[in-house]
Amino acid sequence: MEKPGCNSSYSKKEIQQLRYLSREEAEAIEKELLEEFRFGQQQLLEILGHACAMAVAKVFPLHSLAKKQPTLLVVCGCEQNGAIGLACARHLRVFEYEPTIFYPKRSSNPLYRDFTTQCEKMDIPFLSYLPTEVQLISDAYNLVIDAVLGVEANLGEVAEPYISVLSTLKQIRIPLISLDVPSGWDVETGSSEGISPDVLVSLAAPKRCATRFMGKHHLVAGRFLPYDVQKKFELNLPEYTGTECVVSL
Amino acid sequence: MEKPGCNSSYSKKEIQQLRYLSREEAEAIEKELLEEFRFGQQQLLEILGHACAMAVAKVFPLHSLAKKQPTLLVVCGCEQNGAIGLACARHLRVFEYEPTIFYPKRSSNPLYRDFTTQCEKMDIPFLSYLPTEVQLISDAYNLVIDAVLGVEANLGEVAEPYISVLSTLKQIRIPLISLDVPSGWDVETGSSEGISPDVLVSLAAPKRCATRFMGKHHLVAGRFLPYDVQKKFELNLPEYTGTECVVSL
Repeated sequence: MEKPGCNSSYSKKEIQQLRYLSREEAEAIEKELLEEFRFGQQQLLEILGHACAMAVAKVFPLHSLAKKQPTLLVVCGCEQNGAIGLACARHLRVFEYEPTIFYPKRSSNPLYRDFTTQCEKMDIPFLSYLPTEVQLISDAYNLVIDAVLGVEANLGEVAEPYISVLSTLKQIRIPLISLDVPSGWDVETGSSEGISPDVLVSLAAPKRCATRFMGKHHLVAGRFLPYDVQKKFELNLPEYTGTECVVSL
Repeated sequence: MEKPGCNSSYSKKEIQQLRYLSREEAEAIEKELLEEFRFGQQQLLEILGHACAMAVAKVFPLHSLAKKQPTLLVVCGCEQNGAIGLACARHLRVFEYEPTIFYPKRSSNPLYRDFTTQCEKMDIPFLSYLPTEVQLISDAYNLVIDAVLGVEANLGEVAEPYISVLSTLKQIRIPLISLDVPSGWDVETGSSEGISPDVLVSLAAPKRCATRFMGKHHLVAGRFLPYDVQKKFELNLPEYTGTECVVSL
């Protein structure tokens, strides 16, 4: 005869499911971090940019790159996702990669401007246009990082230069790494016709569109969420090893 | 007969000496980072706090701690060094250590206040007083982090509560880790009568007092200095491995 306590003890051992966030949940978490926990935007950009660089270096360590020069291209939008891309590029430069940035529409936000200046002053080259001939991109770079559009993007309003940029990224034949949300994808429903990144780096916690991701590597990067936030939003994040800030799913 | 080129080729192979910074040089580097490179103070605190936590975890990994609970005490001053201590404590909490903070004099600087709120909201306990009986500290904690006074400290003006705090830290028998400058030491000439930390974590580059450090482990933490800054100030920093942000000297 089964003891009455058995079921509850069994359920404790069940693996709790990782939560994929809706746009509303992602925004609520950010609001809570900024308002309740008093994190600063500059601080969050720095944490996430560093974590993205760690994720890129984890999947593509320097010695694994096909080309002799450890070149890579970071394509940045003018909102938060782009600013994280700028911070990521800077950290990759420190890790001895050779990033080039394409940042077609610069933000007037002073915070994002500072992240841009840091890259410029560190002699990271900025492209003045993105070649439409993708072979030129494949010849010059080992990989491309897509930091164009993130959670904040309103897909109904995507205009040039991003329409052309996305059309080029869709044809890329070298590894494409998207930060948080593949650009042009809906945060929740993804996209059947958009870009198909090989690597998705979810920031802090995965968004719902990540369930539609079919590429090789899905990582979560950015280990800083207070335990209370994880609990409140029932995130059930994967376990990080040691002091690592990136985890593969 | 020796060829004329030999000497110059030899000199290239010589190991270039790590530079130990004067207070003036340390301040000039910070000024350059903030004004020329447009780094933000919040960003620098975050980078350095994270790097300090990585340094602590490198020297004292969780499994190496003597006590069953991974407790540690972080003693913070009211200036920049203390704010880095707050950020360090937060990251150590995320790494599953159990930090407690003693922060006897709170800063009114809004930036430091935010770093304090982050710790409070993450349920890191704050001590209301530091036991003068050091045995109580040894019984409760595995190690103590000294984030009391840094480069900015004017030793001629050190008053209470810091005089008592330093006198307690001097008697500590568990490992003591100082951030950047052992508190109470002159940035350049050190101190013959002050505290004797077991570990010194130099931030970004060592200060001159580090040449007087006699403890077991000296690390440099915080890998973000632009190459041009390293060159201009002839820092000759040690080489970091892979993506690590800490290096042992």
